[in-house]
Amino acid sequence: MSSFGYRLIAQDSGARLGEITTPRGIIRTPAFMPVGTAATVKALYPEQVKQAGADIILANTYHLMLRPGAERVARLGGLHKFMRWDGPILTDSGGFQVMSLAGLRNITEEGVSFRSHVDGSKHMLTPERAIEIQCLLGSDIQMQLDECIALPAKIDEARRAMELSLRWARRCQRAFADMAKPGQALFGIVQGGTYPELRRQSAEELAAMDFPGYAVGGLAVGEGQAAMLETLERTVPYLPKNKPRYLMGVGTPSDLIESVARGIDMFDCVMPTRAGRHGLAFTWSGRVNLRNARHAEDPRPLDEKSSCPAAREYSRAYLHHLVKAGEFLGAMLLTWNNVWFYQELMAAIRRAIAEGRFAEFAAEYRDRLANLEPNGE
Amino acid sequence: MSSFGYRLIAQDSGARLGEITTPRGIIRTPAFMPVGTAATVKALYPEQVKQAGADIILANTYHLMLRPGAERVARLGGLHKFMRWDGPILTDSGGFQVMSLAGLRNITEEGVSFRSHVDGSKHMLTPERAIEIQCLLGSDIQMQLDECIALPAKIDEARRAMELSLRWARRCQRAFADMAKPGQALFGIVQGGTYPELRRQSAEELAAMDFPGYAVGGLAVGEGQAAMLETLERTVPYLPKNKPRYLMGVGTPSDLIESVARGIDMFDCVMPTRAGRHGLAFTWSGRVNLRNARHAEDPRPLDEKSSCPAAREYSRAYLHHLVKAGEFLGAMLLTWNNVWFYQELMAAIRRAIAEGRFAEFAAEYRDRLANLEPNGE
Repeated sequence: MSSFGYRLIAQDSGARLGEITTPRGIIRTPAFMPVGTAATVKALYPEQVKQAGADIILANTYHLMLRPGAERVARLGGLHKFMRWDGPILTDSGGFQVMSLAGLRNITEEGVSFRSHVDGSKHMLTPERAIEIQCLLGSDIQMQLDECIALPAKIDEARRAMELSLRWARRCQRAFADMAKPGQALFGIVQGGTYPELRRQSAEELAAMDFPGYAVGGLAVGEGQAAMLETLERTVPYLPKNKPRYLMGVGTPSDLIESVARGIDMFDCVMPTRAGRHGLAFTWSGRVNLRNARHAEDPRPLDEKSSCPAAREYSRAYLHHLVKAGEFLGAMLLTWNNVWFYQELMAAIRRAIAEGRFAEFAAEYRDRLANLEPNGE
Repeated sequence: MSSFGYRLIAQDSGARLGEITTPRGIIRTPAFMPVGTAATVKALYPEQVKQAGADIILANTYHLMLRPGAERVARLGGLHKFMRWDGPILTDSGGFQVMSLAGLRNITEEGVSFRSHVDGSKHMLTPERAIEIQCLLGSDIQMQLDECIALPAKIDEARRAMELSLRWARRCQRAFADMAKPGQALFGIVQGGTYPELRRQSAEELAAMDFPGYAVGGLAVGEGQAAMLETLERTVPYLPKNKPRYLMGVGTPSDLIESVARGIDMFDCVMPTRAGRHGLAFTWSGRVNLRNARHAEDPRPLDEKSSCPAAREYSRAYLHHLVKAGEFLGAMLLTWNNVWFYQELMAAIRRAIAEGRFAEFAAEYRDRLANLEPNGE
């Protein structure tokens, strides 16, 4: 069984081509991780996620600890077996979701107490329990518990949360050393809001703790793309070059391209799956809103440049009909298209880096993919 | 291009093994048609329906005439191309759904006027328009417009509706002669409530009109299985032996076995698909309610006797979790399992007839498949 590791293969215009090795397989980076919140990438069979090109998926500790429960998943043989995904799985710490339970949670030095959104039951998430849950699930890449604050935030508030997150990082690291299996990895998470000095301090202190990978947390929470990218520029230089860098919860195709240009290797976001359930498709010509009546008699496929069956074999007219009628198949096809598109995008990014033309690639696609298709809708 | 035809291959204990030939392929009978109401068998890709063993599917004229509209489907190349199903399609006349719009519809000699459940718009469905719509959709087997009354009904009411349905049958036959393409077929529908004399009259008059196939309508509307089967026994003997017989809207596995024993060749029902969206699975051991907590830690697959991937490759614990969490994948897997099971059941029925052991088969399965799995739930 191989251990966890990262190899930097090539660099081009700030972008990094690499490879993460895990006992469950290799993750080609830059990588986008489809989100399987409740042990399923919504509206897709696991085979479709694999076939789309995903090397790794993300699952949410908060949702799984409440339903079906981490101990139950462990008794059933772990998350991989439970959901029939034999590739690597990254789990978050549950912190982000818990923090967003405004009015239902209380943060102390010890951890976060909260009430379940499912049944109102009381729970306590500490750094140690967050690691224990992730070990029970059996995830390959685990995340420290951190405090993610809403932006904009005053500097004192951002500093307090960043420093708490550092103390929790140490507790997570100790718990992980006790509980994890060989080949599993724990990532530290850089916090500090949009304050460069705090981000630098957080990155440097985490780097000194020698995690096998680092996440940039607390972004894409309302600060806007420009502020996010500026924060990345002020953070990434302080992260070790020989470790993978993961930008949590991001983002649009444009966000991915811009963040790769700033040295990010890993992403996750509900955008492709959630958009698919709401009639929105990502294509190589831009976003397409299938709810729009202009598709009602359009016999063309969704995206001839895609190799996804959902993009090539069904007419826009049919997809429009399915979406308007609220049919399962509409969500199934558009989710499939979107998850596939995101993987094609990452593959194209990796090729561009390998061939030393990432800047050209970014120039061509950074805006095009963000826009709605020509014609307006 | 071959024309429409029926061939009786074998008979055993009242059950018939046969084959319907259409320009779009052969339908092995007894056949169960999955229901694709709005041009999709809910929660399944068309490839899965085919792979499950279905030779033919049903689509609903009422739903399609309102959304996306028959003329629109015709402009897009017809229903087969629209929904990517290249096998035969049977459409109903729309009558059954329209009649059930209590308070929103008005029946006259001319036809039925009604308001759309989608947008409240006014529509008129006549025998001629019902055929026109089905020809626009391009369905291979079309149904006459009939009046389906609620049961129990007084004999005068049942007679009035039966006689109106006969007059509409003649008008449909004339319209079909004008509009249909070679190889398409129009079925007459026997009505008459639970009154043997009315059923006999309806069947004999329709038989004299020489339709290529006959449906038994107006059953499975609350009269109970015993009354339904008795009505079948008093109806089927008056239908031509050399034509297929279709029992509309039926039913449970037990209903299928009992009706095949009484000479029925074709079925349709929303049961396998609807049940799949509500956590109920059909298996060779009986029905399984995946909502039940006793499945929460059951690592066994749903049905080891099934060859469906949904039945074999996922644990009951996982299916329970998906159903409780309201995940798309739960509905997708259980619908897949159920549609597949219904096709396996029909294949087993056909084999039993071919091998002259249908009575034994029926004795073994008629009750078992109707019951919940042992242990109670």
